[in-house]
Amino acid sequence: MSYTAPVKDMLFAIEHLAKIDQVAQIPGFEDAGLDTAAAVLEECAKFNEGVVAPLNVEGDKNPSAWKDGQVTTTPGFKEAFRQFAEGGWQGLQHPADFGGQGLPKTIGAACVEMLNSANLSFALCPLLTDGAIEALLTAGSDELKATYLEKLVTGEWTGTMNLTEPQAGSDLALVRTKAEPQPDGTYKIFGTKIFITYGEHDMAGNIVHLVLARVAGAPEGVKGISLFVVPKFMVGADGSLGARNDVHCVSIEHKLGIKASPTAVLQFGDHGGAVGYLVGEENRGLEYMFIMMNAARYAVGVQGIAVAERAYQKAVQYAKDRVQSRPVDGSINASAAIIHHPDVKRMLMTMRAYTEGCRAMASTAAAAYDAAHHHPDAQARKDNATFYEFMVPLVKGYSTEMSLEVTSLGVQVHGGMGFIEETGAAQYYRDAKILTIYEGTTAIQANDLVGRKTARDGGQTAKAIAAQIEKTEGELLASGTAEAKAMARRLAAARQAFVDVVDFVAGHTKASPNAVFSGSVPYLMLAGNLVAGWQMARALLVAERLLQAGQDEAFMRAKIATARFYAEHILVKAPGLRDAIVEGADSVTALALDAF
Amino acid sequence: MSYTAPVKDMLFAIEHLAKIDQVAQIPGFEDAGLDTAAAVLEECAKFNEGVVAPLNVEGDKNPSAWKDGQVTTTPGFKEAFRQFAEGGWQGLQHPADFGGQGLPKTIGAACVEMLNSANLSFALCPLLTDGAIEALLTAGSDELKATYLEKLVTGEWTGTMNLTEPQAGSDLALVRTKAEPQPDGTYKIFGTKIFITYGEHDMAGNIVHLVLARVAGAPEGVKGISLFVVPKFMVGADGSLGARNDVHCVSIEHKLGIKASPTAVLQFGDHGGAVGYLVGEENRGLEYMFIMMNAARYAVGVQGIAVAERAYQKAVQYAKDRVQSRPVDGSINASAAIIHHPDVKRMLMTMRAYTEGCRAMASTAAAAYDAAHHHPDAQARKDNATFYEFMVPLVKGYSTEMSLEVTSLGVQVHGGMGFIEETGAAQYYRDAKILTIYEGTTAIQANDLVGRKTARDGGQTAKAIAAQIEKTEGELLASGTAEAKAMARRLAAARQAFVDVVDFVAGHTKASPNAVFSGSVPYLMLAGNLVAGWQMARALLVAERLLQAGQDEAFMRAKIATARFYAEHILVKAPGLRDAIVEGADSVTALALDAF
Repeated sequence: MSYTAPVKDMLFAIEHLAKIDQVAQIPGFEDAGLDTAAAVLEECAKFNEGVVAPLNVEGDKNPSAWKDGQVTTTPGFKEAFRQFAEGGWQGLQHPADFGGQGLPKTIGAACVEMLNSANLSFALCPLLTDGAIEALLTAGSDELKATYLEKLVTGEWTGTMNLTEPQAGSDLALVRTKAEPQPDGTYKIFGTKIFITYGEHDMAGNIVHLVLARVAGAPEGVKGISLFVVPKFMVGADGSLGARNDVHCVSIEHKLGIKASPTAVLQFGDHGGAVGYLVGEENRGLEYMFIMMNAARYAVGVQGIAVAERAYQKAVQYAKDRVQSRPVDGSINASAAIIHHPDVKRMLMTMRAYTEGCRAMASTAAAAYDAAHHHPDAQARKDNATFYEFMVPLVKGYSTEMSLEVTSLGVQVHGGMGFIEETGAAQYYRDAKILTIYEGTTAIQANDLVGRKTARDGGQTAKAIAAQIEKTEGELLASGTAEAKAMARRLAAARQAFVDVVDFVAGHTKASPNAVFSGSVPYLMLAGNLVAGWQMARALLVAERLLQAGQDEAFMRAKIATARFYAEHILVKAPGLRDAIVEGADSVTALALDAF
Repeated sequence: MSYTAPVKDMLFAIEHLAKIDQVAQIPGFEDAGLDTAAAVLEECAKFNEGVVAPLNVEGDKNPSAWKDGQVTTTPGFKEAFRQFAEGGWQGLQHPADFGGQGLPKTIGAACVEMLNSANLSFALCPLLTDGAIEALLTAGSDELKATYLEKLVTGEWTGTMNLTEPQAGSDLALVRTKAEPQPDGTYKIFGTKIFITYGEHDMAGNIVHLVLARVAGAPEGVKGISLFVVPKFMVGADGSLGARNDVHCVSIEHKLGIKASPTAVLQFGDHGGAVGYLVGEENRGLEYMFIMMNAARYAVGVQGIAVAERAYQKAVQYAKDRVQSRPVDGSINASAAIIHHPDVKRMLMTMRAYTEGCRAMASTAAAAYDAAHHHPDAQARKDNATFYEFMVPLVKGYSTEMSLEVTSLGVQVHGGMGFIEETGAAQYYRDAKILTIYEGTTAIQANDLVGRKTARDGGQTAKAIAAQIEKTEGELLASGTAEAKAMARRLAAARQAFVDVVDFVAGHTKASPNAVFSGSVPYLMLAGNLVAGWQMARALLVAERLLQAGQDEAFMRAKIATARFYAEHILVKAPGLRDAIVEGADSVTALALDAF
């Protein structure tokens, strides 16, 4: 088995950290308790381990290929996607009204992780479709919903997000794609979009492009952007496919990683104009786009966790198999499997602790999402929405940044073999590199964290989280074990570092934006480090309690050991980040531009 | 120009940190003062910028190819290597007696950096040849020297290092290649070697393999390993090439990076035995091999600096060209070049500070090497040798680890374009990943630092370096500028962290090897961070002095700004590393093996 889904760890997080029992008290989620979670995860594991994971290496060796405007995906992808659709996996978190299963994100996020561990390239197609579904659910007219949603939710068709243009990457104010209103209420779309993931492929009957464009006469900048549906094939009133729309894939990119996922350049309107349907109101495209983006940002964070988990599993396997050198403690008087060497353990523990910490963070964030959207109490919805919004840049930014370190360590554990492509460890290293870039670079996430999530409310949300962390520190001290005390100490230091930074950010963003934004990414890294560490602290407390109750001793001991490692080797980075942010801002911008 | 050699920064380090004037007082180096250094570096820059750098992308797109035992290198490599040889670059640091130029390493190391910045894959061929030359100079018989040295030093032939076998990577005790003594004093070699860089190619008339093998009846383990010369073509008494020897390249690897450099599997003795000539005495192969390795380890450290420099230059270029979003401080009321964004500056400054810090560290180490080998005073030779030996694992380990971060940031600065192979930033990211692995992984360097370089002398050498650093802190405080005080503060904290760790290592390696080796790589990272930071502190002091003297204001201001950035954003990591090493050892090894 090249991938074994970490179902036990996922269920631990879902049960004890995300508290699925509370999610299951929300109307509509009554059947979505722990038993359902366990059943869905088992089924999901079976599918991804058996069907999707085996295609991962093949996708890297034999990527999507473009010819005359057509894209042929890796052999096996099309069939696997059919199985994915027929299994109902695309619709897991989407409303039953449109053919979905209506499960909470608390469960769905674990399934998304499995799919991405199995095959990052394959998983991107459903990931983008989810974004299109979210946008249509939120802002689509009844007609658009009726025409497109069920097809997307059932995986019969797939969706894309068309934001980027050659001159407009992170800066959507520069979008130039035009939309000309037509007498029949439709629009004609003209322009070029780049970096369109699964912008063209052969895995589904139709592709539903969600496209940002500017209606003639719209205001300059982001306030003049509208969102359109542009189907690859026109759709008849009866849902039948009609003529080819005027959107064409003119090339796909040659990339460092995720090679199986076609990254398309799409040309709209070269033959008279692509037919587009306005989503919601004109000039509100950016707002709707953020709905897609927020869903996608969380999902990309999960991709980071997923590729880290896969890299970890591969490294552990190699470390147990590869025999090389005697252990330094003399415990074995011959060359031994390299997992006996302390530095190999350190690397594997680093990989494991990061992965479990970020998984726990993402899982608790998912529960907040469910409550934010479905809780019957308005205040609970608001509080959870605030918490979730704070988490999105951390889940996206921190989980993907850590995945770069984890996949690099994965290669390192393999030594020289890691550098040989056939070994497979290098693929994760290459694949992961896109995660800190797409759906908003780490710097963009950090801007969001600084501006909208911290400065705007004067640091209130951040401070409230710090207060909750302080409470956990109290529980750790009350436990009094060596592990809990070690965790409490490092957690407190990291929390204090975080509070200092929050004060700095809240106090200076307006007056000294350069100083604050000079430390925005380090702030994100500190916040992510702390929040993931906090979840490991909560996990440690749960594991100690269950261990005492005699439950699953090996698992609980491993959780405690991993949490302590996180505290002593990862949380310890926090004070240094604080110093760099609060006391080192000037040196970021001191160099004269022409001295670079 | 795709690469511009940083001649000014190199000469600054050579003059003010490595103190070339002192090197030029050593007998034999009288002509190797600053003027010579400047002349050589200018010439070297011209050659590498013009001839070697343009082949870098081509080598990645069109790597070495194997067919029927022959390896064809990238078009242009052969011709460029002839120019390299004819320019005398191979012999730069080698004795004039054998056709070299006899220049000090203080100058040579800068030339090695340029060659590697220009083209990491190309530079590997001379790098391995240097190792073979060192081994023959140290342990070769007069006959071997007469037959091989001049051909190698002039670049007519090239050399290789044959250590690794499928079952013996880091663990040379497992070497199984056999050497059978023949009546004529030669040996017949039988076995398989893997990962042999430039083990077969078309760039030179002959290839001189230095091969580790076991003479029949030799002791088990590393004490039974001998070193042999095995030429690809037999060499006649008159130096003419004769029959093909029985060593054949059966395949080359498909790698993540450095694709242009052929990584060969060599089969010795499939047709009766390859003729080998013993180097030095039987069973002393490991000792000689370490001579090659130490030279190569330093050079691989320089490779890290080199690829970091190249990645930095490319990122700066992109950041100055790419227009995207308004600056947060409102200084420009339109989308601006991304270098105006604080986080882009932070990334570029991180890349720059790491690169300059490691360059300064390598340059001072090179001067110590020159004194260690050539100083007329025995005590000076000994002291410098001790210092240099301490530096080797830092130059190798720290400079290569930082190159992973720097090349990753290089991709990140490019955003989505960084992930597209045609952009070129991804190549540096892929190429760099081998540097922390070959010539001894970072863990192997760290073992060396812990065992031979720290524990063996009870931490004396390390403490002596700490004392020198404390002296620099005093000079910084005496200067009293804001930059010098900021540097002094961070340097002192890092130095204290280092001393704590040295005490821990010296005090516990024997009794608690697992605890110490659990922190060996973090110790290496802390030591490298500190020593590179110390050199930046020295550089800061020099730059302040020269600035006052009115010398090259822009350069000196940039040096001061970069040094302060190093202090406030890189040195600040040191205390966290200390905590992880000294207080976090147990959590590295706490997890049960079967829980991984």
